[in-house]
Amino acid sequence: MATIVVCAFNKTARGCLSSHLKAATRAGDLRLSLFSAHSPSKTVLQGTRWFSRGSSVRFMSHGTAGRSAAGRSRRGALALSGAAALTAAAAVAGFLANAEHFQRAEMATKVLQTAEGKEEEEGDILERCRGFMTAPVTDIRVLQERKAEMRTRMEMLIMETQAEFCRALQEVDGGTFKVDQWQRKEGGGGISCVMQDGKVFEKAGVNVSVVSGYLTEEAAKQMTSRGKVLKGKDGKLPFCAMGVSSVIHPKNPHIPTVHFNYRYFEIEEQDGSKQWWFGGGTDLTPVYVNKEDAFHFHNTLKEACDKHHPQYYSDFKKWCDRYFYVRHRGETRGIGGIFFDDLDSPGQEEVFRFVKSCARTVVPCYLPIVYKHLSDSFTDEEKDWQQVRRGRYVEFNLVYDRGVKFGLATPGSRIESILMSLPLTARWEYMHEPAKGSREADMLEVLRKPREWV
Amino acid sequence: MATIVVCAFNKTARGCLSSHLKAATRAGDLRLSLFSAHSPSKTVLQGTRWFSRGSSVRFMSHGTAGRSAAGRSRRGALALSGAAALTAAAAVAGFLANAEHFQRAEMATKVLQTAEGKEEEEGDILERCRGFMTAPVTDIRVLQERKAEMRTRMEMLIMETQAEFCRALQEVDGGTFKVDQWQRKEGGGGISCVMQDGKVFEKAGVNVSVVSGYLTEEAAKQMTSRGKVLKGKDGKLPFCAMGVSSVIHPKNPHIPTVHFNYRYFEIEEQDGSKQWWFGGGTDLTPVYVNKEDAFHFHNTLKEACDKHHPQYYSDFKKWCDRYFYVRHRGETRGIGGIFFDDLDSPGQEEVFRFVKSCARTVVPCYLPIVYKHLSDSFTDEEKDWQQVRRGRYVEFNLVYDRGVKFGLATPGSRIESILMSLPLTARWEYMHEPAKGSREADMLEVLRKPREWV
Repeated sequence: MATIVVCAFNKTARGCLSSHLKAATRAGDLRLSLFSAHSPSKTVLQGTRWFSRGSSVRFMSHGTAGRSAAGRSRRGALALSGAAALTAAAAVAGFLANAEHFQRAEMATKVLQTAEGKEEEEGDILERCRGFMTAPVTDIRVLQERKAEMRTRMEMLIMETQAEFCRALQEVDGGTFKVDQWQRKEGGGGISCVMQDGKVFEKAGVNVSVVSGYLTEEAAKQMTSRGKVLKGKDGKLPFCAMGVSSVIHPKNPHIPTVHFNYRYFEIEEQDGSKQWWFGGGTDLTPVYVNKEDAFHFHNTLKEACDKHHPQYYSDFKKWCDRYFYVRHRGETRGIGGIFFDDLDSPGQEEVFRFVKSCARTVVPCYLPIVYKHLSDSFTDEEKDWQQVRRGRYVEFNLVYDRGVKFGLATPGSRIESILMSLPLTARWEYMHEPAKGSREADMLEVLRKPREWV
Repeated sequence: MATIVVCAFNKTARGCLSSHLKAATRAGDLRLSLFSAHSPSKTVLQGTRWFSRGSSVRFMSHGTAGRSAAGRSRRGALALSGAAALTAAAAVAGFLANAEHFQRAEMATKVLQTAEGKEEEEGDILERCRGFMTAPVTDIRVLQERKAEMRTRMEMLIMETQAEFCRALQEVDGGTFKVDQWQRKEGGGGISCVMQDGKVFEKAGVNVSVVSGYLTEEAAKQMTSRGKVLKGKDGKLPFCAMGVSSVIHPKNPHIPTVHFNYRYFEIEEQDGSKQWWFGGGTDLTPVYVNKEDAFHFHNTLKEACDKHHPQYYSDFKKWCDRYFYVRHRGETRGIGGIFFDDLDSPGQEEVFRFVKSCARTVVPCYLPIVYKHLSDSFTDEEKDWQQVRRGRYVEFNLVYDRGVKFGLATPGSRIESILMSLPLTARWEYMHEPAKGSREADMLEVLRKPREWV
């Protein structure tokens, strides 16, 4: 299904595609691949070296599928790479075709969302892992053994989301993410992908972490925003927590900063029963108000939400405005998006499907906006205003963000991964107040009174 | 006494003094003045306009004393302006004479410290107010009425400290402080002096606040670092809190950032008894290790401490290293100095004298270092490293600093004054780790293992 759409899309947009979008166009072979030509089996299973590291891995490079013995039936991987191709293609086409860009991005997203249900998780674990930025945190054999468990399905989703987003960003920037794998002494670890001082992005970070171990009852309570009381054996609760999170700070002040985070918690109580919940959200922080961008961003999120519950968008949009609030300034951090936490109903399967829709919406939410403003010119004053807004971003992240506060206070956490959300540069001007009627003042007005964009 | 020293110093150093240091050198008239030529009496007492605002106020301008009817016996003001003149002169002389600079600064400081005891607080309140950056927070008539009370003596000291330091900085920078007076709805207010993007200083803030009102027992407990339990009438305690605080971020990476804060709290308990305590400290945050600067800074503080108690320097130096610790980085913010809190023994008079010595040491601690490095050349790499260190400064201030956290969480507090401590610009590089053996690595080593400098 996804492959057919790629074909249809490519036919329509082919004339517009830039040469750096290396989508598969060979007649009769629409298999897009994230894979290198190396035979992966040995090294993957040994877990010592990652087969897709190095320059041979390219986003949507084609023609390698046929060269790999394992390259025939990778439907799960196809769904992901197809999604990546679709959204990136939509973005490029949009950038070039200008007026039609949002329409095309939306079309691509819709089709993808229709297709994903069937294709997700059908591929072999090993096959799907080939598309990741590096080996997953959990040993591949362990993932294969417990393929049906939610913790495995979620780890696969966050790894796929990281890969999809990183590659879409590399495609537009031309730069390469630095990939760091790290381990947590107490259990688990993570993969941090950072691109710094690129052509388009001042700092782009996409982080996956998968940690496990034991929590005290107090720590378990703190992990839930509702302060759930959970009982452990001798006061200790086995837990696992995983998530993908990202903050992208572009150079051009007309390209907004984006942030997203999707996460899953699982805690085992004294009686062996498992408590689980999901959290997440995607939000946009522009430097200047652009209603068209705001509509596109929120509408893409709304469409993803609407497929799951008619109240989700409205509720989670409000939650987002409440959460990303810099109280001491009386301003929201940006123009919001969606945010939710402790989501454990109606059922694990339903919530996972919703989270998956959200994660798959990251690229179509953001990339079309990046491409649209890629060549916008800007003044020193606009750059200065961006830097002042970056300062506010730092204030939110260091003073209020629950994740950052929790991370900084947790011994053994990886500080560089937690603080990669901070911009490369920021500015604090004493008593900075934009002139009345200026575009800077317009931005402040929106931040002081959150709006409905859809 | 102070005037004689000024004379002796000027005779010695006259040849070295730069022309922009307008010290009084008229034969027979050593009265240095911070005053404008305006007759102040009416406007001051009306409290609506401040007589010394505007360009007519100049640090150590001379020759105006004789033109004011009130200009004859202002011994308190003389002590202050004499101190300012001495230290600035010592600084300039040091900068020009190079090898001798610290020796001269120390000489000046010592003489000043001997002289201050006698001259302090002898001047008339009104006279002393003329040297301030603007009218004090408390009405001058109220200050005159309760001249002998500690809250008045402390308010006068912090206003004098602000003026002395601001003028010394203006002298070296050539720029002018923006002076903002602000009021707190619940009682009291403050005076924020900020110089931004000057020749020497990227951002310099010197803030005075004098607030009063009622605290809940919980808030009163939070105000003390020891968590003292205080009982109020119906759970409410009348309090006043005041302090002067400053953070100076220079442009040149070879000139360190300095911070100081001196404060006084007074809380009335249910039975009418007053609890009081002082807190404060001065600390230095260099970008590169300079042992000579570190020795001068710490030694100047040690000499001020040693006059009051042989343990003070050693104890408060350790406290400073403990307090200015960026836990998540495993680094101190800078090379320390002194820090103390909740100081309420041996007696109010003794502690006040100690705090006064500390406050008077701010200029001789810092200005000689500024003058010494004023013309140091620097590379882009050195500037970058400064910006990375500025990022760490932001992390400490937003994540750990008790004053900032308390301020941001307190409704009605003036955010711009609290956050003026943040640098104009800062930088966060992912995984920044200086090369082994580099001067940047030397700095980190010192921050990871605090040293004894004296």
